Amino acid sequence: MKIYVVGIGAGSADGMTYEARKVLENSDVIVGYTVYADLVKKLLPDKEYFTSAMKQERERCEKAVEMAAQGRKVAVICSGDAGVYGMASLVHEVAAEFEDIDVCVVAGVSAMLSGGALVGAPLGHDFAVISLSDLLTPWEKIEKRLECAAIGDFAICLYNPSSKKRRDYLQKACDIILKCRDTKTVCAAAKNIGRDGEEYTVMTLGELRDYQADMFTTVFIGNSQTREIKGKMVTPRGYKNV
Amino acid sequence: MKIYVVGIGAGSADGMTYEARKVLENSDVIVGYTVYADLVKKLLPDKEYFTSAMKQERERCEKAVEMAAQGRKVAVICSGDAGVYGMASLVHEVAAEFEDIDVCVVAGVSAMLSGGALVGAPLGHDFAVISLSDLLTPWEKIEKRLECAAIGDFAICLYNPSSKKRRDYLQKACDIILKCRDTKTVCAAAKNIGRDGEEYTVMTLGELRDYQADMFTTVFIGNSQTREIKGKMVTPRGYKNV
Repeated sequence: MKIYVVGIGAGSADGMTYEARKVLENSDVIVGYTVYADLVKKLLPDKEYFTSAMKQERERCEKAVEMAAQGRKVAVICSGDAGVYGMASLVHEVAAEFEDIDVCVVAGVSAMLSGGALVGAPLGHDFAVISLSDLLTPWEKIEKRLECAAIGDFAICLYNPSSKKRRDYLQKACDIILKCRDTKTVCAAAKNIGRDGEEYTVMTLGELRDYQADMFTTVFIGNSQTREIKGKMVTPRGYKNV
Repeated sequence: MKIYVVGIGAGSADGMTYEARKVLENSDVIVGYTVYADLVKKLLPDKEYFTSAMKQERERCEKAVEMAAQGRKVAVICSGDAGVYGMASLVHEVAAEFEDIDVCVVAGVSAMLSGGALVGAPLGHDFAVISLSDLLTPWEKIEKRLECAAIGDFAICLYNPSSKKRRDYLQKACDIILKCRDTKTVCAAAKNIGRDGEEYTVMTLGELRDYQADMFTTVFIGNSQTREIKGKMVTPRGYKNV
């Protein structure tokens, strides 16, 4: 038996792959966080849905695996990609105890890519992706990673840059990176990618420090070569001018 | 006037987004590296194509921008995503001199995501993406990034792990990472993702050191928490068992 974990992209129907759409169409029940399920319901209103609130991920996965074990065709949905801060690893963990269940992950366009396309080409060279959420990761670990990414001159994409409880985390992150990167480094923030209210801002690292991000923001920090070109953030493909 | 840079995903028709397909269908001419253009030709045989060989990227972009400036609807295609080691930054650079041309990037599923889905969920937590190609980047810079990614306990995805001229680069990279990561660290390699001959191998970092990668291989190196679950590579979403 198979259980699918499907990345639906940023949220618009067009941002989904054909494979993701087919898997959802062929499933008996679609399982997901309420907000993402609502996006899919617009496309596939006649499906059965099992939804639950944020932070209920483990319960949702257990329920999904249970339904799959009963022989139902289950698709667990994630925004963006299924693997990047998504449910794929959790479903693999929960399904480990069920010998008959194969976990099939269907990749999707993660916010680093859809947001990247919106702001220009911020991840055109080596990059690091870091979540500022300390819900499942000690903050010291996050600080260490920010430091390493800065020292390595990686372009950086930040997920979960802010929430109600973590208003100053983006500022803290910028301060760590500013220790070894210029205050004029080109940066960008993308909000509500692929949804109503989509917008982006290109700015300097100094400005990003005081930027008001929210939980629907994806942040990009350039490497030493990143430039602003006609209002977009562009990281060149290399260091040699070939 | 607009010029589109389109990520077509791994290569199968199903791995493309609806948006990418629509842009290609609406374009007058599709510009790309011969191998990727051949993949699109299977879907859209009646389009006009302008193709050229590898390492002709700048000439191809210049030609594409020139055609767009003449009023043609041009789509420059890239495998995977358009931004990640793709043509988006180069098209932005080349188009900078043409005031009337807007560059529109259409994101796609990059090999780190499609390959990740194939091998399990290797990028379930913070990760670094590094290309081992020293064509446009000094090797010392690449070494420094490998070192920083290893120290930061990032999961790591390697692009371009090998080519005819760089047979021992993956071995060199593993040796750098082995300085601060266990030889038993779970790793994986995915070959020919989404194409004929698709395959993957899950192995240890010690084994990866002697693995024969080729230019169609994407490599994944786990962080300290990555596990093998039923033959797949899974990086948990965090460090706390929530």
